[in-house]
Amino acid sequence: MLDSLCYRFRDPALLERALTHASTCGEFDNERLEFLGDAALNLAATEELFSRRPELTEGAMTEIKASVVSRRTLAQSARELGLDEAASVGNGLKGRAMPVSVLANLYEAVLGAIYLDGGYAAAREFVLRTLDSALADAERELAGSNPKQRLQQLAQARWSILPDYELVETRGSAHARAFCVRARLGERGFPSAWGRTRKEAERWAAHEALLVLEERPTAPLEA
Amino acid sequence: MLDSLCYRFRDPALLERALTHASTCGEFDNERLEFLGDAALNLAATEELFSRRPELTEGAMTEIKASVVSRRTLAQSARELGLDEAASVGNGLKGRAMPVSVLANLYEAVLGAIYLDGGYAAAREFVLRTLDSALADAERELAGSNPKQRLQQLAQARWSILPDYELVETRGSAHARAFCVRARLGERGFPSAWGRTRKEAERWAAHEALLVLEERPTAPLEA
Repeated sequence: MLDSLCYRFRDPALLERALTHASTCGEFDNERLEFLGDAALNLAATEELFSRRPELTEGAMTEIKASVVSRRTLAQSARELGLDEAASVGNGLKGRAMPVSVLANLYEAVLGAIYLDGGYAAAREFVLRTLDSALADAERELAGSNPKQRLQQLAQARWSILPDYELVETRGSAHARAFCVRARLGERGFPSAWGRTRKEAERWAAHEALLVLEERPTAPLEA
Repeated sequence: MLDSLCYRFRDPALLERALTHASTCGEFDNERLEFLGDAALNLAATEELFSRRPELTEGAMTEIKASVVSRRTLAQSARELGLDEAASVGNGLKGRAMPVSVLANLYEAVLGAIYLDGGYAAAREFVLRTLDSALADAERELAGSNPKQRLQQLAQARWSILPDYELVETRGSAHARAFCVRARLGERGFPSAWGRTRKEAERWAAHEALLVLEERPTAPLEA
């Protein structure tokens, strides 16, 4: 049943429960499993980002993770796995396109069932297999969003100045160098960031500055 | 080093990093470990609630969990473990009482370090050992908060009616009975809840109704 999952349940009743939406109004539904799956997903995505991107700050990891575990991403994965076809839903949902929130819940509930059935290792493996391309997309998107350009536009528009980039530190030998850079707007410095090239470090440093500035869009520069 | 943790690190540098607050402005700090620890904490607390309280709905579990993983609870545990004494902080934080947020971050960073060093099982064991009494407190608080009385007050104040409780279903034999009850306000029914006695089920049903009503405090009854 549901070969697309590439996971064989020891207890198939768990999968059945995971595929039973609350709208069926039956004795059991998948809401508790969804709660568990959400937490397992969060740890698996966090751990993967942590080990894959040792140069990213907490802020950048948070941003990538939010995109990977978004309702939209999970809903798409649920569709690819055919969970919409396999699910039991109430009459109100029958015969029409399944809402994104219901699809995302199905994904999380199935993950919760795998977690209960096979432990964290099985759940993690499922997450990496089904969300791998979403993770890659989110990383690319963040890296390609040209934070240096965005920071420049913002600094010009708001304070009529240009950002500059201060090299804080260089480490390692010629073949494995790492650069630590901080963005500055006038007197104000922002959190530094590491990169494998100076340009990459500048991009992440701009990203860090944007995270700070976008958190308080109307604050003065000296804040 | 730090016997209070009851955990021996294979890689003691991880613990050192976990105890290095960002205010030190050094090359490494504990922010990434905190990010990882937060996710591990979330899964461990969720899993524990899930297995310990099979009768609770997602809403009630969410509420208990929020209390257990609150900054205040984690800060208290950090203090009990002596993390405040062991931590390296920047000059700005030295010699005064450590803010709750810094303490909570230390707890999460140490947990993240244990996770990296010993895997999920070790992290989970640490969470259950250090937050066990907080979990018990949160459960007691929720159960003792008298949701039936709160629902009655709210229904009277807002719509001048009294709630009633509908027995949806009874299961099991005399010695292991379970009751499913739904609160009603006039025509409107709320999500049902299970309990081991009818009274307990009514309490959880009132709690469910409060969760719905408190989410939209100004909505009309028919919403």
